[in-house]
Order: sequence, then C-alpha cells, then structure tokens
Amino acid sequence: MAIKFELIKKSKKSNARRGRLYTPHGVIETPVFMPVGTQATVKAIMHRDLYEMGTQIILANTYHLYLRPGMDVIKEAGGLHKFMNWQKPILTDSGGFQVFSLSKLRTITEDGVEFRSHIDGSRHFFTPEKVIEIQNILGADIIMAFDECVPYPCDHEYAKWAVERTARWLKRCKAHHKSTENQALFGIVQGSTYKDLRIESAKRTVEEDLPGYAIGGLSVGEPKEIMYEMIEVLHPILPEDRPRYLMGVGTPDCLYESVIRGVDMFDCVFATRTARNGTVFTKEGRMIIRNAQYAKDFRPIEEDCDCYTCQNFTRAYLRHLIKAEEILGAILLSIHNVRFLLRFMEKLRRDIEEDRI
Amino acid sequence: MAIKFELIKKSKKSNARRGRLYTPHGVIETPVFMPVGTQATVKAIMHRDLYEMGTQIILANTYHLYLRPGMDVIKEAGGLHKFMNWQKPILTDSGGFQVFSLSKLRTITEDGVEFRSHIDGSRHFFTPEKVIEIQNILGADIIMAFDECVPYPCDHEYAKWAVERTARWLKRCKAHHKSTENQALFGIVQGSTYKDLRIESAKRTVEEDLPGYAIGGLSVGEPKEIMYEMIEVLHPILPEDRPRYLMGVGTPDCLYESVIRGVDMFDCVFATRTARNGTVFTKEGRMIIRNAQYAKDFRPIEEDCDCYTCQNFTRAYLRHLIKAEEILGAILLSIHNVRFLLRFMEKLRRDIEEDRI
Ligand SMILES: [Zn+2]
Ligand SMILES: [Zn+2]
Repeated sequence: MAIKFELIKKSKKSNARRGRLYTPHGVIETPVFMPVGTQATVKAIMHRDLYEMGTQIILANTYHLYLRPGMDVIKEAGGLHKFMNWQKPILTDSGGFQVFSLSKLRTITEDGVEFRSHIDGSRHFFTPEKVIEIQNILGADIIMAFDECVPYPCDHEYAKWAVERTARWLKRCKAHHKSTENQALFGIVQGSTYKDLRIESAKRTVEEDLPGYAIGGLSVGEPKEIMYEMIEVLHPILPEDRPRYLMGVGTPDCLYESVIRGVDMFDCVFATRTARNGTVFTKEGRMIIRNAQYAKDFRPIEEDCDCYTCQNFTRAYLRHLIKAEEILGAILLSIHNVRFLLRFMEKLRRDIEEDRI
Repeated sequence: MAIKFELIKKSKKSNARRGRLYTPHGVIETPVFMPVGTQATVKAIMHRDLYEMGTQIILANTYHLYLRPGMDVIKEAGGLHKFMNWQKPILTDSGGFQVFSLSKLRTITEDGVEFRSHIDGSRHFFTPEKVIEIQNILGADIIMAFDECVPYPCDHEYAKWAVERTARWLKRCKAHHKSTENQALFGIVQGSTYKDLRIESAKRTVEEDLPGYAIGGLSVGEPKEIMYEMIEVLHPILPEDRPRYLMGVGTPDCLYESVIRGVDMFDCVFATRTARNGTVFTKEGRMIIRNAQYAKDFRPIEEDCDCYTCQNFTRAYLRHLIKAEEILGAILLSIHNVRFLLRFMEKLRRDIEEDRI
C-alpha cells in the first residue's frame, strides 16, 4: 500500500489520536495541517520557507492544475512533485469541490460533471475515472475520490441522493485506480448536516476498505456545533487504523475541536488568504495589521513566535508593507500564519502524547 | 567622513575603475549595482535572499518613504535600517526625480518644490533643507542632494537654468547637512544632453568637495550614445578619488558601457519590474518566460546561473506561475534578474582587475 498509518497514541482525555503516516515522499506526524498549494505553489511562500517552518505535506488542486498548466505539461515534467520541485508528500483533491463551487454552467449526470472553465469558459467533463487518471498523472502521495459536494443548506432528499452518487462514484474511482502502491486513494464521507446520512455515507465509504477517509462537505457555512456533531457521529464508524481527513478546516479553534474528536489531517486556504489581506493569527486572536494602532508598534507580531517574520520584523514595518501593497507584506504575513498553524499542531501533538487534551 | 573611497585599480584598457567604498554599514566593492527598495523593500525579494545573492547596498526612495509610512514612524523606529531591519548599506535618493516625475501639480520656485502626493493628493513642500532633514532621519549611509531634474528633450536654456538652480540647491543641502560623519552627501550633475552644461554642472558640483558625485538626468529617453557621451565628458572633471554614481541605469549593456567609462555605482528598477512582468535576463538577451515556447521547457532559465531560482525551478514551472499570476512567480523571477545583474557586476570587477575591459 502507498501509505501506512500507525496509531501511536490515543489520548486518555478525548478522542484525539497521535499518529504517523508513512508515504512515498516521507513520514507525516499527525494530527497535521496541510498548507494549500492550489496552483502548485502555496501562495506567496517559497518552498524553502515551507520546509524551514516544518511543513510536512502540501495540498494541490486537481481542478486548477488540470486547467492550467494542463496535464500534458505535468505529464512531461514527470508528475507534480517534479514539475514544482516539491520534495515532501503531496495530497491532491479530486476537483469535486471546485467543479461544484468555481466552474460555470455545470451539468451533473450519473456519468460525471460537465463544466466550463472559470478561466476561459472552455468545456470539460469530469468523471470518476477521468479524475483518477488526472490524479495518477499528478502523482500525489494521497489522492481523493470524486464526490458530489452539496451546498449548505441542502434538503435531506438531495443530500441523500448525493451520498448515494458519491458512493457509486467511489466504486468507479477505486476500480479505476491502479497505482495503489504509489498513491493512496481516500474516500470522502458526505451527508450534509444530517446524522443519518453521515452514518450511511461513512458506512458505504468504509466498505471499500481504503487507506484513509475524508470528511467532506463541512465548513461550508453551517454552524460550527453542527460540524463538530457530524465529526462525532463518524467517530465509531471510521476505522481506528486509518487516517481521517477533515477537508477545508484550518482555524485554530476548529483544528482543536476537531482534533479532540479524532481528526488527523486538515487543509485550509484561510491562513494564506487572510495573510494577503493583512490579518495575522495570534494566540489572543486575529490581528488586523493594517490598523493604525500598529503604525508605531515596533514589536513582532508575537514575541515568542519562531517564524522568520517574527524573528526579523516589526508590526510597524509589516503594516507599512501591507498598506503600500508590497509583495513582501504578503510573503511575511503568510509565513507567520502558516507557521502559526504548524506550531499549533505541534503543540496539539505534544498535548495528545501527554494526555493534556 | 562617513565614507571612504579607495581606488584599487584602474584598467589598462579603458576608463574602468575597481574600487572599494567603506561605509558605516559595511564595505562595498565597486563597480556595484544597487537593487532598488523604493518603499523600504526590494519588490518581491526577501532580505535573506538579497543577502544570499550578494547584494552589497540597496537604494530607497525619500519621496515614497516621506509620504508612507511618514517620517514620524521612521524616526521612532530609529531610522530606515532599523525600520526595515536591513543590515547592509543604504543609499537614499533626494526625492527630486519623483517630485518631478510622479507627483501632481508641482510648482517650482527658488525656495523649493510644492507638490501633491500621488497617493492621496495631500500638499507638500520640498526644499533642499527639508530633503536633507528627511534623509538625516532616514539615516542612509549615502544621501543625495536635492536637484532639479529636467525631462528629455529639454531646451538648452531651461537645462542651463536647472543646472544653476541645482548648484544653488547643492550649497544649501551641504550647509544644512550636519551628520557628515555618518552620512555621505553626494552632489548630482545635471545638464540634460548638452556637453557644455554637463561640464559646467560637474565643475560647480565638484567645487563643493563632496564624498561622491552622481550623474542624474540620464536614461530618461535619450539615445544611449548620447548618455555615453555625457559620461565621457565628465570623466576628466570628476575627481578620481571619489565614487561616481550613474542614476537609474541597470541594463547589462548600459552597465558595461558605463563601467568602461569610469562609473562606479548604479541603480535601476528595471530588473525587478521586468521580472514581475514575466521577463528575465539571460546572457543571450531577454527571455519572455510567459511565451508558449517555454510551456514544456524543463531547463532552468540559465544552466550556469547560481541563483535559487535556476538551482531549483524550470522555465515551464516559472511560466506556469507567471501565467497563473502567482506571487511566487514574481519572487523567483525577481531573484534571478537581480542575481543576474549582481553576477554581471562581479564579472566586470574581475575583468577590471585583470585588464580585460
Ligand atoms: Zn511569526
Ligand atoms: Zn538564475
């Protein structure tokens, strides 16, 4: 199998789990946060800084890379790792979420989804088989099944329909995925905010005996409490010896709440997107660095942060860079925010090891 | 004196000079190219990368920093070096060029220039004294006198008038500049494209016995041959034991042609600006990396370039980043272009040492 998950420790205090994921490109300590490199780059951060700040794995987007630079380019490059010269593990999503949220004029049939590119309006057709073929070319260590993502809110009937289609599509994905030695296919649990559907979806996904399971369709606008409830109902169904990946979640509070409910993997664009807008994470909450109050604040964002930004620059300088719309502002705030989440996860891992959470 | 210039070697083949400039923040080997950090950042490049690629000194813009973040912020930070945490020498320009090219509704009088900010339309008044005070607060190792820059073309009468005003303003700048131990004030030779005016301006500037001399008002649209001619007429007038700085020049051909005519220092935004637009320097000329021909070109920009970009990434990946408007594209191309010019200058220095140019 392409990956092996080792459950190192279960917390005595919660459902939190400390694990280790062995992949063709290296070992990942879980719970883990995966910075998002949508278009084969984690926005505004150099590879070297990602390595230095302790990034273990990044996520890239099938939908975006399929449209640009296109699969012929990545195939000739020898896969995504070589194309972008990224030495550590990669996870690619299936494009499902983007097809349902970004593309224009999509038409869903049992066979797949026809959609138009958000870049040039060109027409494309994604099927479960096609999505596996694309991800086989991308060559990520972990790949995702093609699923039907429903918006929030969604009525029970349609959500059930999507769960069933997602289950059928998963069988097709699994049947079409041959390079199981190099790439681990994860199934995605859907079911919107309905416990019965989540349970049904989880059971049907687990039936396929996959190397890992993702929880999709959450963090799409529903109250956080409902998200946590959905994670809780899945806990007894998802097998203990497989990693659990909550898609699209990446704020400190949600990471913590999900980790204590047994989630092992996370990704989210929020850290980098909010950095580019001039907002940074701190232990006391978010800091809007462009605010006038920081104009003459010559302290780092956080005194005890070990990131390049906090080690070298003041809030006043960072505010100036953001106000002046300088690229260096986006770079430095992105570095801090991603490092903040990585450190946050490091602490959660220690907390699990010592039964503090 | 704030700086000491040591003339190490004169080429046997040309007027090229190999020198060494001792400043409060370090030693600069000349001829030198100075990357431009207009708003207290060399656009899209991290400090660390600037150090690693061998940057000896950067230039920052008085006009921009005066308007944003403003002198109160930089004064409280303890000067520009501390504000931006830059450890090596800095040169600040006088703001003259920007006042004449960027600002709105400027009114020139003998006393100074009234102008409106290009950012918010606010009204400001720059005098020679004011510009020195601003640069004293900025605290750069090398500061520039306030001069009147004329556009190209410019009639002889007006150019002569500007030369005389620049000379009068220089006296006021010199009289007002007290921190000569920490900051070296350079005078600026004007005179448009008229030999007689260049000679007159040089003589009047040299009369002030300053630690260095700049050549301004060139590379503003005139034919290159005229620029070289202007440099040539200055050669016998400018004292051999002081550094000569040609403002706003930074393409490989112009650097070479000016070095063999005796110029020691250069700055230009071209390397970084053109990088952000997707064009890179190579020994064979400029390469427009966004062109389709590089879509599957898996070679580095230059095989023998030692920059981080060429050591790690292919033209195909860089093209993708630029096409996808990713910040990493701007970063990586800027690194290559600046390193290209720094290496180019390293080679010119060796060539002078060995009388090859
Ligand atoms: Zn930090
Ligand atoms: Zn290079």
